[in-house]
Amino acid sequence: MNSNDLTISKILQLAKIILINNNANTNNNFDSIKINGIASLSAAKNDQITFCLDKKFLQDLQNCQAAAIVLPPNLADFCPQNSIALIVKNPYADFAKIANVFYPPNYALKNSPQIAENVSIGKNVEIGENSYICSGCVLQDNVKIGKNCILYSNVVVYHGCQIGDNCIIHAGACIGADGFGFAPDGDSWVKIPQLGRAILGNNVEFGANSCVDRGTFDDTIIGDGCKIDNLIHIGHNCKIGKNCVMAACTGIAGSVEVGDHCVFGGASMISGHLKIAANTTISGGTLVMKSIKESDNRYTSVFPLETHEKWIQNASHIRRLDKMAKKINELEKLVEQLQNK
Amino acid sequence: MNSNDLTISKILQLAKIILINNNANTNNNFDSIKINGIASLSAAKNDQITFCLDKKFLQDLQNCQAAAIVLPPNLADFCPQNSIALIVKNPYADFAKIANVFYPPNYALKNSPQIAENVSIGKNVEIGENSYICSGCVLQDNVKIGKNCILYSNVVVYHGCQIGDNCIIHAGACIGADGFGFAPDGDSWVKIPQLGRAILGNNVEFGANSCVDRGTFDDTIIGDGCKIDNLIHIGHNCKIGKNCVMAACTGIAGSVEVGDHCVFGGASMISGHLKIAANTTISGGTLVMKSIKESDNRYTSVFPLETHEKWIQNASHIRRLDKMAKKINELEKLVEQLQNK
Amino acid sequence: MNSNDLTISKILQLAKIILINNNANTNNNFDSIKINGIASLSAAKNDQITFCLDKKFLQDLQNCQAAAIVLPPNLADFCPQNSIALIVKNPYADFAKIANVFYPPNYALKNSPQIAENVSIGKNVEIGENSYICSGCVLQDNVKIGKNCILYSNVVVYHGCQIGDNCIIHAGACIGADGFGFAPDGDSWVKIPQLGRAILGNNVEFGANSCVDRGTFDDTIIGDGCKIDNLIHIGHNCKIGKNCVMAACTGIAGSVEVGDHCVFGGASMISGHLKIAANTTISGGTLVMKSIKESDNRYTSVFPLETHEKWIQNASHIRRLDKMAKKINELEKLVEQLQNK
Repeated sequence: MNSNDLTISKILQLAKIILINNNANTNNNFDSIKINGIASLSAAKNDQITFCLDKKFLQDLQNCQAAAIVLPPNLADFCPQNSIALIVKNPYADFAKIANVFYPPNYALKNSPQIAENVSIGKNVEIGENSYICSGCVLQDNVKIGKNCILYSNVVVYHGCQIGDNCIIHAGACIGADGFGFAPDGDSWVKIPQLGRAILGNNVEFGANSCVDRGTFDDTIIGDGCKIDNLIHIGHNCKIGKNCVMAACTGIAGSVEVGDHCVFGGASMISGHLKIAANTTISGGTLVMKSIKESDNRYTSVFPLETHEKWIQNASHIRRLDKMAKKINELEKLVEQLQNK
Repeated sequence: MNSNDLTISKILQLAKIILINNNANTNNNFDSIKINGIASLSAAKNDQITFCLDKKFLQDLQNCQAAAIVLPPNLADFCPQNSIALIVKNPYADFAKIANVFYPPNYALKNSPQIAENVSIGKNVEIGENSYICSGCVLQDNVKIGKNCILYSNVVVYHGCQIGDNCIIHAGACIGADGFGFAPDGDSWVKIPQLGRAILGNNVEFGANSCVDRGTFDDTIIGDGCKIDNLIHIGHNCKIGKNCVMAACTGIAGSVEVGDHCVFGGASMISGHLKIAANTTISGGTLVMKSIKESDNRYTSVFPLETHEKWIQNASHIRRLDKMAKKINELEKLVEQLQNK
Repeated sequence: MNSNDLTISKILQLAKIILINNNANTNNNFDSIKINGIASLSAAKNDQITFCLDKKFLQDLQNCQAAAIVLPPNLADFCPQNSIALIVKNPYADFAKIANVFYPPNYALKNSPQIAENVSIGKNVEIGENSYICSGCVLQDNVKIGKNCILYSNVVVYHGCQIGDNCIIHAGACIGADGFGFAPDGDSWVKIPQLGRAILGNNVEFGANSCVDRGTFDDTIIGDGCKIDNLIHIGHNCKIGKNCVMAACTGIAGSVEVGDHCVFGGASMISGHLKIAANTTISGGTLVMKSIKESDNRYTSVFPLETHEKWIQNASHIRRLDKMAKKINELEKLVEQLQNK
């Protein structure tokens, strides 16, 4: 994709990679060998860089044709003769950094206008330098977009909302729609005006057709470095800490406070007004109905799958657990009585 | 936001609030004190109105700086000296009505054109007076939009569909796409044309990126006053009663009939062709697989969350519940035999 | 809708219907009776065709006014005197085929321009003959759309992605956004460039606001004939077989391989890197955490719903299943000891 071939030395320098050591076959050539791109372990050609993380791919590693391979120390000895081993502590992250040298986030937009056709921009909107607003986006009045951002097509940012620097917002995302606030009034519902904003920090990626609502009085906040997948809902007044990761189809109800570095598996659901301690992991499909106070744990609430026939056998008993527990208690007492005779 | 300061008398009149009683410190001033807006209990300044619902916010109430505070009778005595207590039966709804005096649903669009740029309007489309169609919306042929509606950006309304009066449709919502109807034909599927419409009643709010499909032969109907949150799916042929509330990520499969005043917690899922009685509450994350015939109940089917380690211990037993139940029965018989000896 | 009335003979020929037999009242008239459209069993008039699948609609069948009724053999004798019985082996599919004669997928777009207003088309984009690109769609560089496709409004197709022939993509769908790939790097996350494409086969229907991500190195693939409902997420690198059906709100995490002819109930969720054998059915709301190796089964993991009060009684026991199992084992031993005395 990038036609200017780069030497390995230059790549390591641009990606800020620190090698652990250079083993035998890597002493030379860093300034002469030119690299043309990246590829997967099995597909990489002799002008490309690839990576391997795990011994389970040993055969692919030994057959690899790549010019250089990013590897953890324990795989150094399995690097094929014709490839240069780039031994690092965190090979996945370091390969990602190398990949970003060739394919920075805006590589597919490089020759596009910064503000594309069919974009609607309201009054008093600020857009930072080097940001791309793709076709069909709508920025209502008083919106503020940082620098080096990409808003893919058909993103809507409601009035007054803000997006920090280096953010990627995927197509169809909706930032700052009204929170879901209604007061019951007899049989009907009165809308509570939603006067806060939605504020995204720096380095946030926000997925296709995902939504974050504006706050009621205060702002809804998504912290720096959060990565939000597709079709996710984040309700009004939420405060999401830094560097949280949410996989697709997750839903966070209103007024939830999430600590830093939390990980939400796909389709996890968090009830309203809860607090989730830092470094919590919620397994996919898990519904959280209570605050989680102790940090660094993983929580799960998923019912294990069965063939439908077996599930039917078990499902009836789930509804009778209270009766089963009582029967066990009765049996315990009866057995005790028998023992005492 | 509204620069014309209003007296308290005028606000009460516009919001149609009936006070329960005026306590000592509220006998005067209703015509002289001017109010500039609303704010939360802790942030309100001396030209703003706020509210308090519950004794758990007593400290904030006693420190409150607001000009006036909407309160239930049991909090009247805790209103600070310098604030006017507005004692009402339903303080949350009444505060919402006051808030709507300052911030009516279209306050952020007040100076916008009624039909914004980049809107596509088909043949024979009707749009009622005082309705706003924001940029990027698409109204296909024969669509009918009532009066006082807001369609935020990038809403798509398919041909022939109708939206009543006073509706708010949030960005990216899709009204009237084809229902999911296919007939199996050997290995493949034949599409069943979807010839009905999607009809939204009056006073409906419909969330960002939510979808309601058109009916197959009949129409899909969402009743007056329904409030539908973000990322919700309502399938073809559904008939949703009046004033139902659905929190985000809810899915209603096809041909479901829902009575009036039902409440669906976030991520609840309703299987196809069911009937849900009026005034039913479905807890968040609950999957409904049978019709609910008795009204006024709340239903839940959520597996309670555990740390992952404890969950693993329990999960295996869930799959053996049928065996556990049988063992308990056997033990019961054995104990009875022992007793009879 | 179609003003050129068609004879029954012509309709059967266009829809390629093979009748099992013509019973007494259908011997004549096929070339003279003209049909004007389709309708449901109870609403059909005497110039329309309808269908009936099941004896539970016997009363509606016997009162039916339709000119002709598509029926399975076991309902032939219940066809009313004035209607022609069209007896076929697969009446639902055959009725769908007849319906498509009157209402082909593009019937609502017949007089629209092939590329509507406010569409953005990048460089080197190919669009096949007879395809409609509705207003607000965005096709980035190097996108390829087959023939006879409909892209409803506000669909976004990212650079390089491909859609086969005869596909219907509903409003707001997002094809080929970046997959959710990040490498942990200390406290933060490094984006892994997503260099593959999303490729949809022929005859795919893809629902409103649904998303399929592009692959990391390889392509994400949706096989021929798949029918994907609304608000569905399909992660990067997935390979979905042919003729799979996914009901609304389903989520398929990254790198999942699904065999042909699988059926996913609404809101089913599949964890990453799993393989699902051909002809598998996943019940609605079921979360799949393990590969499914044996084909032709149905799997379920849904917790059965209760009134909230009963659910609270049972829910506590679910968390103590491990203890219950241990108690049962202890009781077993004690009873055995008592028996041996």
